[in-house]
Amino acid sequence: MNGAQSLVQTLLNAGIDTCFANPGTSEMHFVAALDEHPAMRCVLGLAEGVVTAAADGYARMTGRPAATLLHCGPGLANGIANLHNARRAGTPMVNIVGDHATYHRAYDAPLTSDVEGLARPVSHWLRTSLSPATVGRDGAAAVAAAHGGQIATLILPADTAWGEGGVVGKTIPPPDLSAVPEARIQAAARWLRNGQPSLLLISGGALGEAGLDAAARIAAGTGATVMCPTSPRTERGGNLPYVERVPYSVDAARNRLAGFRQAILVGCRAPVAFFGYPGKPSEMLPEDCRIQVLTRPGEDPAEALLWLAEDLDADAPPPPTREAPPTCPDGPLTPEALAAIVARHLPENCIVADESISAGRAIYPTTRHAPRHTWLSLTGGAIGIGMPLALGAALGAPGRRVLNLQADGSALYTLQALWTQARENLPITTVVLANRAYAILKGEMSNVGAGQIGPRARDLMELERPTPDWVALAAGLGVEAARAGDAGALDRLLEAALSRTGPFLIEAVL
Amino acid sequence: MNGAQSLVQTLLNAGIDTCFANPGTSEMHFVAALDEHPAMRCVLGLAEGVVTAAADGYARMTGRPAATLLHCGPGLANGIANLHNARRAGTPMVNIVGDHATYHRAYDAPLTSDVEGLARPVSHWLRTSLSPATVGRDGAAAVAAAHGGQIATLILPADTAWGEGGVVGKTIPPPDLSAVPEARIQAAARWLRNGQPSLLLISGGALGEAGLDAAARIAAGTGATVMCPTSPRTERGGNLPYVERVPYSVDAARNRLAGFRQAILVGCRAPVAFFGYPGKPSEMLPEDCRIQVLTRPGEDPAEALLWLAEDLDADAPPPPTREAPPTCPDGPLTPEALAAIVARHLPENCIVADESISAGRAIYPTTRHAPRHTWLSLTGGAIGIGMPLALGAALGAPGRRVLNLQADGSALYTLQALWTQARENLPITTVVLANRAYAILKGEMSNVGAGQIGPRARDLMELERPTPDWVALAAGLGVEAARAGDAGALDRLLEAALSRTGPFLIEAVL
Repeated sequence: MNGAQSLVQTLLNAGIDTCFANPGTSEMHFVAALDEHPAMRCVLGLAEGVVTAAADGYARMTGRPAATLLHCGPGLANGIANLHNARRAGTPMVNIVGDHATYHRAYDAPLTSDVEGLARPVSHWLRTSLSPATVGRDGAAAVAAAHGGQIATLILPADTAWGEGGVVGKTIPPPDLSAVPEARIQAAARWLRNGQPSLLLISGGALGEAGLDAAARIAAGTGATVMCPTSPRTERGGNLPYVERVPYSVDAARNRLAGFRQAILVGCRAPVAFFGYPGKPSEMLPEDCRIQVLTRPGEDPAEALLWLAEDLDADAPPPPTREAPPTCPDGPLTPEALAAIVARHLPENCIVADESISAGRAIYPTTRHAPRHTWLSLTGGAIGIGMPLALGAALGAPGRRVLNLQADGSALYTLQALWTQARENLPITTVVLANRAYAILKGEMSNVGAGQIGPRARDLMELERPTPDWVALAAGLGVEAARAGDAGALDRLLEAALSRTGPFLIEAVL
Repeated sequence: MNGAQSLVQTLLNAGIDTCFANPGTSEMHFVAALDEHPAMRCVLGLAEGVVTAAADGYARMTGRPAATLLHCGPGLANGIANLHNARRAGTPMVNIVGDHATYHRAYDAPLTSDVEGLARPVSHWLRTSLSPATVGRDGAAAVAAAHGGQIATLILPADTAWGEGGVVGKTIPPPDLSAVPEARIQAAARWLRNGQPSLLLISGGALGEAGLDAAARIAAGTGATVMCPTSPRTERGGNLPYVERVPYSVDAARNRLAGFRQAILVGCRAPVAFFGYPGKPSEMLPEDCRIQVLTRPGEDPAEALLWLAEDLDADAPPPPTREAPPTCPDGPLTPEALAAIVARHLPENCIVADESISAGRAIYPTTRHAPRHTWLSLTGGAIGIGMPLALGAALGAPGRRVLNLQADGSALYTLQALWTQARENLPITTVVLANRAYAILKGEMSNVGAGQIGPRARDLMELERPTPDWVALAAGLGVEAARAGDAGALDRLLEAALSRTGPFLIEAVL
């Protein structure tokens, strides 16, 4: 058994059964080993940003890491932006990065680079595997490290892969989440009983059904307000209580949070501004708001909320009133009309991969009355996640429909994901919000006080001259597509697209 | 004057007049400063791999660095693969990487990352500019560092950009190339007179007209063989002597170089295998071949060759015999037919941006009799350079035609470059070599002894199911395109495309 074979078998034994890949020469023995193990599903991405975001989407839906296969420093580098996002989402992932044979490094061949140096900023766990005899053990350690929501990167020199003497690594069981100490539950309960305006900010594992129900009990029993930051995964709709999101804009967030005197954090940190702005604060909570941390990393936020609800003796409120879907809007396709149309058609059990950025801000609140669904967000701010995140989510949750709400500027970073959507024939409906600009920057230009937008600055923020044609781009990558120029057209196209078995893209011209 | 304004003025004073950009919020003040300085040409790339490779192509043609503008760690990361290529090409470049305001970093906002950690592996010079008062000086130092063929990365926190008190940095004149010591010239001459089979391996500045002519004199006078590695830029065709390239494949290279007993290196290092292969050597020169280094970094290879030719008292050989262009091949589009068609139509003064990889290997030797042209190669092995390299070359050499010979798998990494080609209406003709596979990997699978390609491995190397449609992809990004299914069609399309004023893409189906 060579090192590559021992590593693939180790990954399979540890429960990793999907490998998103963009291989090169130094990975050929690993590819040969993948070929011998049909239990490992291999999915090709035509650019590494597709590979890493797909692994993120897969893990968000399964709770288990996928593997990625990347080629040397440059291949890894192409995937780093979406590794950054995965790191910010607390996503488990195991990256296998092929590199030169150990003895070949000394020759400084053209592709030689500091792979560890590139991997370190985005990896919680990092190791170069130097021998076929130990690569199995290294692989098992990587999977164990990933399981807690970490990025584990294993660098695989070619001779470690091709050398004989591989030993399958023993699976290391993932640690259970710890229970929150009783004293912290009681401390939170004391605050919630003191009558002060209280914010219960919940994220991570708290945004599943159990956590949401417990948070709603706490809110009903104490008058606290439940909110969430932009979170990796949120269960929503149906009979689940609605949780308001902290606004993106620092002014809006400061305004919304102004009245709170105490905040209890569950599975998240205190909210901060996405960027620093001249003369504006970095923190979103009021200066006089005291903060208590209910759960720490490695603890179970949903269980903590349940205990807290019990401690408070809080009863479940009646299920939220569900409004009827909005009627179909007429006329031009405004962001508000688009939000109403999405809310009209969002199917039961759908997964929303949301990279809608500025033009999509209305969609989240507008879909609060939709049937039960799962919402995946961009939590790291590196654009170009949406299309491959949708791809990975679809592979991680077979049988579920995926709706990708996708800003056009961001989509252009990783449009190659459409090709894999087509190859795997996945039920992904993509709505490209085509405002033909980095629209967020136009707003930010005034937020940062940088003055009026001149023509040369405007040229750096607009996707005009020429206008990207998403129907052609999708067709070029094997995905059928159509363009919606007004609200009625989008309504009809979306309804039809959501019933197709394979992928479909709608360019929604805003 | 704020920091951003002082930095833009510093760059302009130091001779940088082009900025390839993909900005974000933290760069808004720098963008505003660009807007105020019309002397700085700003070129938007829709992904950062486009930005960095375009700056590479620009510098290869002008000999001067361009600036890039990148957004935080993830934006930089997206550009790293082509920074790796630029580093391997010895390209001068100044990267401005925006980052959070210094005081905001402590809040670990979503986009916070270790920007220096990501930049270090691809930067010869690296600095974070901490104050508006010093950012001008830092910018001048960055340009000075870049001028010797280095990657200089200046990280620009948002408050350094927006803060008042900017001071324009004083331009630091670039150092001249040093002359090669007389003793080294004489040592090389002694070897070349001793009658042993000699290789003169030349690259870098030796591949311009002066260096090529001097090398031809030395070869004619001594019987030495002149060859070059895959090099960033080579002048070719017309009356220039033809220089054979060292083959890519380690077996072919070892075979070709087997007879040499001594090698003199001019502007390059001893050739090594691109990858390590089981049982094959890493070095391409024979074990008993002794090596002499004629020029070191910072010295002038062309001048060294001229001195050496003088020292050897070598006369200029007659200009090379130029064969008539090949006739138009009939029938299917083989790699050989494609090479002949390119050789038939390569226009005088054309710039070839070559990322043709496996299917294009025949083109370089076949075009040896073409009119005078410039050849730009991929020297770092990170694929996805060709389309943006062509873009940058066209901007760096106004009035010259650019022909991008482009492998399809590699093209899919940075196809966004087509959009900028259209926006700037550049005379770039792209020929996509559509073999619909990572064809090089199929060969490498047997080169590394990884056995037969099974169906699951094959799926990771083929761009089938679906087949990318390059005519649609180009149209989607605003570039007219057509498909050539046989040799005659390519011949007609290429001739027509080369006379257009703007960009055109031909999908050559192999």
